[in-house]
Amino acid sequence: MFQVEVSPNGDIVTLGNGDRRARFHAMWLRDNAWDSETRAPGNGQRLIALRDIDAGLHVIGAQVAGGQLHLTFAPGECSIAYDPEWLMVNSYDRGHDRAPGWLAGGAEAWGAGLMANIPTGDFATVQRDQDARAAWLVQIVRHGFAKLENGPVEDGALFKVVDLFGYVRETNYGRKFEVRTEVNPTNLAYTGLGLQAHTDNPYRDPVPTVQVLYCLESTAEGGENMVVDGFAAARRLRDENANWFDVLSQHCARFEYTGDHGVRLTSRRPMIELDPDGALRAVRFNNRSAAAITDVPFDVMPTYYAAYRRLGEIIDDPAMEVSFRLKPGESFLVDNTRVLHARKGYSGVGTRWFQGCYADMDGVRSTLAAMQTRRPEAAQ
Amino acid sequence: MFQVEVSPNGDIVTLGNGDRRARFHAMWLRDNAWDSETRAPGNGQRLIALRDIDAGLHVIGAQVAGGQLHLTFAPGECSIAYDPEWLMVNSYDRGHDRAPGWLAGGAEAWGAGLMANIPTGDFATVQRDQDARAAWLVQIVRHGFAKLENGPVEDGALFKVVDLFGYVRETNYGRKFEVRTEVNPTNLAYTGLGLQAHTDNPYRDPVPTVQVLYCLESTAEGGENMVVDGFAAARRLRDENANWFDVLSQHCARFEYTGDHGVRLTSRRPMIELDPDGALRAVRFNNRSAAAITDVPFDVMPTYYAAYRRLGEIIDDPAMEVSFRLKPGESFLVDNTRVLHARKGYSGVGTRWFQGCYADMDGVRSTLAAMQTRRPEAAQ
Repeated sequence: MFQVEVSPNGDIVTLGNGDRRARFHAMWLRDNAWDSETRAPGNGQRLIALRDIDAGLHVIGAQVAGGQLHLTFAPGECSIAYDPEWLMVNSYDRGHDRAPGWLAGGAEAWGAGLMANIPTGDFATVQRDQDARAAWLVQIVRHGFAKLENGPVEDGALFKVVDLFGYVRETNYGRKFEVRTEVNPTNLAYTGLGLQAHTDNPYRDPVPTVQVLYCLESTAEGGENMVVDGFAAARRLRDENANWFDVLSQHCARFEYTGDHGVRLTSRRPMIELDPDGALRAVRFNNRSAAAITDVPFDVMPTYYAAYRRLGEIIDDPAMEVSFRLKPGESFLVDNTRVLHARKGYSGVGTRWFQGCYADMDGVRSTLAAMQTRRPEAAQ
Repeated sequence: MFQVEVSPNGDIVTLGNGDRRARFHAMWLRDNAWDSETRAPGNGQRLIALRDIDAGLHVIGAQVAGGQLHLTFAPGECSIAYDPEWLMVNSYDRGHDRAPGWLAGGAEAWGAGLMANIPTGDFATVQRDQDARAAWLVQIVRHGFAKLENGPVEDGALFKVVDLFGYVRETNYGRKFEVRTEVNPTNLAYTGLGLQAHTDNPYRDPVPTVQVLYCLESTAEGGENMVVDGFAAARRLRDENANWFDVLSQHCARFEYTGDHGVRLTSRRPMIELDPDGALRAVRFNNRSAAAITDVPFDVMPTYYAAYRRLGEIIDDPAMEVSFRLKPGESFLVDNTRVLHARKGYSGVGTRWFQGCYADMDGVRSTLAAMQTRRPEAAQ
């Protein structure tokens, strides 16, 4: 049973139930009401703006009845009912200090140990079965990558992977691109060279937040794929030397790519990007498209380069790496804001043909959240 | 004529020409060489990684000859020629401290004064003429929005606008969406309601960084469009109360949208987003899709709400607003990370039919940069 208490001037409401206790401000409560005059019943969109709420708003009445919290606000004498459980779930009356580099949104850092348990789904099952799809999407949210096996071996099959959660992000590389050896490559990816682990397109802003790579042919020697958790690498750097973590997160790097057909992409973004509260937001790491770093003060540059070098060493450490070899009909996708991918070099004997495309992580999270939501919460 | 000087231990090179003088570290110079063994001649991609450069690298020889700076590095005795002008343009030996809220990338803040000179292009001219297109794109980079007049009045014409610079970002709303009154709208945008100035889809991550709105029918009363420079609004808030600017940039807000068909989009991002060096990166403002703010400490919440309220008042101030009424065949686009747009309410008499779609700003910048580049710099 919830108890409620209002501060003498009516600006703070305290809600408690046994050990749980949380304070809320009258303004926050009014702004976050779920009644049908505040939120559109159909889609949950807020019908009012802050300008519609009196700046001197306060609570003049509060009681718990019928499992709901009933508040009366003045001026206006408006009464609104709240779900106390919703309020407790959305409590902000808690500690907020965390060390920079914490993981938000269900991410879990990993290293080579994940080799024993590579996140994998079966193509047809994930397509057909909602629970299997949810389980596969959870892996992507948690680990930032997942494989998909036993898919069709056909041109464009990778679009069926994207259909599982979202939409293709078309770029100057097209809706999809062919990853195989070309005679005059516009990108080193289209050669047989090995590629250091990297995130794709850091010169794009916003970067594509998902990359899908789909194997259609693979008879050449080599060409294994590797993935590295950029969040784990950044956290290891932090634990080794907090100053190095800070220098890479507090200054912007620059990236660029000059292609054919009027393409000259540039960006100015940090290699380790943090939310304002220190949560890891993104990692950008790509030697091929790193441009001259010019946003680091002269006196800081040696430290910056030492940190950049060490981050690369960590990324290259086999202890961080999960590797696998894809067969035709197999694919993997990465959260390109987090997980770096690499390719070992391969020979010109035999063929290696992958198709790649981009998409976005918000679709992964949205599809998963919709599947996990049993009731339409936003329409409460 | 450039002069060059090397520090006794070879770790710093100083380049000077008259009043201009800049220091560079040996490591930075080696990493940013443009010779054909460092950079692929075709596309300018870097062929080496930092791991390929000795951590103890230093300069053992330097001279200016034939307009080039020739450096010899050890260990390895490798000699590389540099363009001194390129080095001076990319100098990092300068002041880096700026007050938070500075404008990067050619942006200029504006208010209602821009009404007298609304950035506008002629559809056919911008399609045909490279200089006209560049001039139109410059406006978008500078002001974050531009109109286009005298376009075709046909379904899907908005895609021709996107073709001028980039690619459509498909979302759960489709490749395009119809903005007209619907009987059971999934989004309040599809009603005749007036909408407070907002950025679109803050619940998406990454947000679509360009929105195009294209008018196909407009005989209803009202329905004028307005735009507000979110960067100007954020800077005005900063100038009025630096603490309020800080509180909105140092804490994440949350946004959400629950639609049909398994869509449940959520994001955790600040209303005022800064680069680590304080440059304005993005503004998010949307009362309809603002979710409960739970990442602000209890004691800070009153200040946060005061700042949020004031930012809304600034956004609503007619002194910030540029408004216009589109005729069929006219369109406008906004940099959705910066410029808020609004719509006045309109009546059910007559029709109002717009089509909208999303795209990305990197295409705007890339297309413009490629047009402005007379020579393939990345292949130097």
